[in-house]
Amino acid sequence: MGAERTDMAAGGTSRRALLAMIGTVAGSAAMYHAMTRLGFAADSTYRGLPNLQGAPPGSTVLVLGAGLAGLTAALELRKAGYQVEVLEYQQRAGGRNWTLRGGDIVTELGGGVQHVGFDAGQYVNPGPWRIPYHHAAVLDTCRRHNVALEPFIQVNNNALLHNSRAFGGKPVRWREIQADFQGHVAELLGKVTNAGALDGSVSKDDKELLLEALRQWGALDRNMAYVANRASSERRGYASPPGGGIAGAPRFSDPLSREDVLDSRLWVWLAEAFIYEFQTTMFQPVGGMDAIGKALFAALGPEAIRFGRKVTEIRQDADGVRVVHVDAAQGGEALTSTAQWCVCTIPLTVLSQTQIDCSPALRAAIDAVPYFSVVKAGLQFKRRFWEEDDGIFGGISYTDLPITSISYPSHGAFSGGKAVLQGAYAWENPASYALTSLDPAERVRQIVEHGAALHPQYLHEYENGVAVAWHRVPWTLGCAGNWSDEARRDHYADLCALDNRLILAGEHASYLPAWQEGAILSALDAIERLHRRVMGG
Amino acid sequence: MGAERTDMAAGGTSRRALLAMIGTVAGSAAMYHAMTRLGFAADSTYRGLPNLQGAPPGSTVLVLGAGLAGLTAALELRKAGYQVEVLEYQQRAGGRNWTLRGGDIVTELGGGVQHVGFDAGQYVNPGPWRIPYHHAAVLDTCRRHNVALEPFIQVNNNALLHNSRAFGGKPVRWREIQADFQGHVAELLGKVTNAGALDGSVSKDDKELLLEALRQWGALDRNMAYVANRASSERRGYASPPGGGIAGAPRFSDPLSREDVLDSRLWVWLAEAFIYEFQTTMFQPVGGMDAIGKALFAALGPEAIRFGRKVTEIRQDADGVRVVHVDAAQGGEALTSTAQWCVCTIPLTVLSQTQIDCSPALRAAIDAVPYFSVVKAGLQFKRRFWEEDDGIFGGISYTDLPITSISYPSHGAFSGGKAVLQGAYAWENPASYALTSLDPAERVRQIVEHGAALHPQYLHEYENGVAVAWHRVPWTLGCAGNWSDEARRDHYADLCALDNRLILAGEHASYLPAWQEGAILSALDAIERLHRRVMGG
Repeated sequence: MGAERTDMAAGGTSRRALLAMIGTVAGSAAMYHAMTRLGFAADSTYRGLPNLQGAPPGSTVLVLGAGLAGLTAALELRKAGYQVEVLEYQQRAGGRNWTLRGGDIVTELGGGVQHVGFDAGQYVNPGPWRIPYHHAAVLDTCRRHNVALEPFIQVNNNALLHNSRAFGGKPVRWREIQADFQGHVAELLGKVTNAGALDGSVSKDDKELLLEALRQWGALDRNMAYVANRASSERRGYASPPGGGIAGAPRFSDPLSREDVLDSRLWVWLAEAFIYEFQTTMFQPVGGMDAIGKALFAALGPEAIRFGRKVTEIRQDADGVRVVHVDAAQGGEALTSTAQWCVCTIPLTVLSQTQIDCSPALRAAIDAVPYFSVVKAGLQFKRRFWEEDDGIFGGISYTDLPITSISYPSHGAFSGGKAVLQGAYAWENPASYALTSLDPAERVRQIVEHGAALHPQYLHEYENGVAVAWHRVPWTLGCAGNWSDEARRDHYADLCALDNRLILAGEHASYLPAWQEGAILSALDAIERLHRRVMGG
Repeated sequence: MGAERTDMAAGGTSRRALLAMIGTVAGSAAMYHAMTRLGFAADSTYRGLPNLQGAPPGSTVLVLGAGLAGLTAALELRKAGYQVEVLEYQQRAGGRNWTLRGGDIVTELGGGVQHVGFDAGQYVNPGPWRIPYHHAAVLDTCRRHNVALEPFIQVNNNALLHNSRAFGGKPVRWREIQADFQGHVAELLGKVTNAGALDGSVSKDDKELLLEALRQWGALDRNMAYVANRASSERRGYASPPGGGIAGAPRFSDPLSREDVLDSRLWVWLAEAFIYEFQTTMFQPVGGMDAIGKALFAALGPEAIRFGRKVTEIRQDADGVRVVHVDAAQGGEALTSTAQWCVCTIPLTVLSQTQIDCSPALRAAIDAVPYFSVVKAGLQFKRRFWEEDDGIFGGISYTDLPITSISYPSHGAFSGGKAVLQGAYAWENPASYALTSLDPAERVRQIVEHGAALHPQYLHEYENGVAVAWHRVPWTLGCAGNWSDEARRDHYADLCALDNRLILAGEHASYLPAWQEGAILSALDAIERLHRRVMGG
C-alpha cells in the first residue's frame, strides 16, 4: 500500500494538489509564517555551532575544566584547528552534569563520605536534571551526540502542596489549590465587575467578554459564583469521581474557602507551572543526565584530558599562558601546562582562590559572584508508593519543610519494584544552609524525616539515600553563580571579556545561571570571540 | 556496595532508625495519611477487579461486542465460571480502541474507502488516544496485561492558539495568551482591591495576602501593573531569550493588550489545561492505543469470539436469550446463538435499530441518547517540522478552523524522519458535521488546507492522510453517547438496569462517556449485578 496509491485513494490530498490551493486559503498567515519561522527563532539565541576554521598551524589552547562548557569549547576549538589540552580536577568528565548510581562514592568538604547504595538501574541527578524545550544548544548537543531523551514531567496537577501550618499540616492536591485560587480570583473580579467597579477603565464590550472569560476560566456558575458543582469538580477533582453503570454517579467536591486558600500561602507554588524554564515540554536523558557529558567526552577522546589536576596558578604574558596544577587528591608536585590561549571554565568560587594574572576588573568580577546554596537528595524506596497509592506519576510536590520539594521520577512509571525519587531540592534558602551544615548521614536522615510528612509510606518503604550539599562539593564549592542585578551591571562584561590570552566560560558567564544551556552558550560565545582575536579580528 | 553498607555509611538512615522517630516528627499528618490513603481512594471508584466466583455449572452468557467493555465482561465472567460466547461485527477485537497503520483500509457508510498510507511504525488512534492518571481501571488493565505505557503530552505552553479573526489570522503561543490573560486579570483585580472595592467582603489581612498573591501569580510589578519586564517575560517568553556570554543579554517581550487578549477569545482554550481528565500525568500505550484491545483479546483467546457477525435480533424469555446475527459484510443467512444471559455492549446508535425483547423503559433509554459527532485525522509528514522549526514537542494547538486542533505526537521526539500528527479533532460542532458530510478525499484535503494556516510547512511536507468521521463508521455510527442532563435523569437508570436476562454495558452506560474508563467500569458494574442475580441476590 504505497503512498501513491493512498494519495489517489484520498483523491488529491497530495502535496502537488495542496501547492495549488494553499496560497489562497492560508493567505496572509502562511506568508507571515514563511517569513518569520516560528520556534527557535524566538525561543533561543542558539543558531547552531559556530563554523570556526583556519586556526594558524601550531595554535594551542588550554581548557580548564571538563564540564559541558569546557568539553564544548575543547571540541569546537579542535575542529577549528587548535591543539587542545584540558585539565580537570575530577577523575571524570562532565562536571555538574553528574549522575549518581549504586557504587558511586561522594566525598565532600569536611570529610563526609557517602556510598551510594541504589540498586542497578536506579539513579539521581544531583546537578541539572531537566532540559527545557527551548534550550536549543543542549538539545542540539544531544542530537549530534545521539543522547536519547525522554519527557521530563515538571508539573503534576495531582502532586501535593504542603504547608505545615495550614490545613492541620495535611497536604492538599495541586489541582485543588490551583482550581480554588483561580475560582476565587475569578469570582472576586466578576463581582466587582458586575458592580461597575471597572466601568471607567473597561469598555462595555470588553466587560461582557471579561465576564464570559472569567466564568469559563474560573469554573464559575451562572451567577459568577465559585461553588461545589460539576464545573469546579472538573477542575479540582471530585469527592467521588464519575464511574460506570449504576454505581457511577459522581459526588462533587467542596472547594476550599477563599480565606483558607489565601492563608495557606500554597498559591506561592502555582507559578512553578508558568515559568518559562519549566513550561512543557521538558526532557531528560534516558538513564541519567551524565549521558551528555559522557557523550562529549567520548567525542573528545581521553587523550585530550588530564584528570585529577587542581589548578593553582594561571599565568599569562605576551607570549602565552602557563597554568600550574597539582594532583587534586594529594597535592603533591606541581606540573605546568602551557599554551597560547586559555579558556577557563573553573567555577568562580574556586577561581577566586586561584592565583591569576589578569586585569583588576576581571579579578573583581571573579570575586563578585556568590554561589547558590543547594542541597539535593536521592532516596531509594522499595516500591513506587507515590504512584501505587497516591496516583502521582512524575512531577513535583512542594512543602515549607526544609526539603522544599519531592520530585518523582518521570521514567519507569508502572514498572514496579524499587525506585529512586528526588527527596530534597533546597535552593538558596536557610534550609539549604542548615542541611549543608550537617554531616551526610544526619542530612539524609532529616530529609527522610521531613518527606514522611507528605508521604508516610516513607516509614515502611525507605531503603537508602544520598544527599549532595553543593557548597561542600570540592570541585565547585557551590551550585551555580548567583548574580544580583547590581553585580551583573558592574561586573558581567568584565567577567566575559577576553583578558589578554584568557577568557572565561561556564554557566556563570551567561544569563542562564545554573542551566546547562548557559554553560554551552557561554562556551560558544567565548570561543567565537577568542577565535576572532586569534584570526586578527 | 550493598544496601547495608550504605545504610551504615549514611549513619542511621535505615528504615529501622526511621521507624523510631517518625511518629513524633510527622505527627498528625502521618496519622491522617495512614488512615485515608491519598490517591486512588479519591481519584477513582475502581477498587480492582470484582472477585466473582461460583457460577452454577453450565451457566452461559452471550456478550455482544468485543470492545473494551465486551472483552472485560467476557474475561471476568469466564473467570467466574460462565461459558462465554462473544459476537463481534468487525473482523477484529477492540472496538473503538483502534489504531490505524499503513496498509489498513477504512470503509465508511456512503462507500468511501481510505487506504492508510503511513510508513512502518507510524500510526494514529482515531478513537481514544490518551489515558488520565486517575482512570484506574484502564491503567490496571494495562498493568495486568503488560501493555507498556508512555507519557502523553496534553498541554504544551509552546503550542499555538489561533483565531482566524484575531491578530491578523496569525497564531500566537499558548504561553502568551496564558500569561497575558492571567496578568491582566491580576492587574484588574489588584487595582480595584487597592481602590477599596473589596473592603466590605475581604478582611484586611486577606486583602494584603490577595495583593501579594496576585502580584506573584500574575507576574505584576511593584505597582501591580502587568508590563514588559523580566517577570512577564518569564511567563510569556522573551523577545530575545537569555543566552551566554557577551551576546546573551535578554530582551523582554511586550504583552498583548488586555483588549486584544479579550477580543481574540483565545482564552477559551486555557481551560483545557485545567480539566480533570486532561491533567498531568496522562499516558498512551507504546505503539498505539489498540495494544489494550489486542492484549485483552489475547487473554480471551480467539475461540471465544465470532467475528464479522451483525446482531439483528435480541430475544429473551423466561428460559434464556436468543440472538440472531448475520454476516456483517454481506447480510446473508441468519445464525442464532443462545445463552442464559446476555451482556450487550453494542453502541446505542446501532442498538436502536435492532429488534430487542425488553421493557419499554429500556427501549426508551436506548433511543434517548444521541452520539457525539467527531472527525479525527492522521496526517503523515516528511519531517517533524513542528519540532524542528517551531519547538513544539507533543501537546495540542487549537484553532477556530474546522479542524479544531492539531495534536503533535507525544512519542518519538527528536527521532527525525517522517511522523504522523493528529491533524483534526472536530468534536460535536458544526464543523464536525460538515467534515463528516464530505467524501474522505475531500475531507482530508480540507483538513490539510486548514492546518496550513497554523503550519505553512504543510505545503512542503505533507505526504498522506486518513480522516475518520465517526458517524460514518458502520459498527458504531457515532463517537460516543452524548448524554444530556435531562436524558440522564429520565433514562440512565433504565439503561443500566438488568432487564430480565439482558444487561447493557459500554461507555454509554457510564458517567464517563467517550472514555475507555467508562466502558470498563460499566462492564464491571454490569457483570457484578448480573452475577448477583444469577447467584440469587
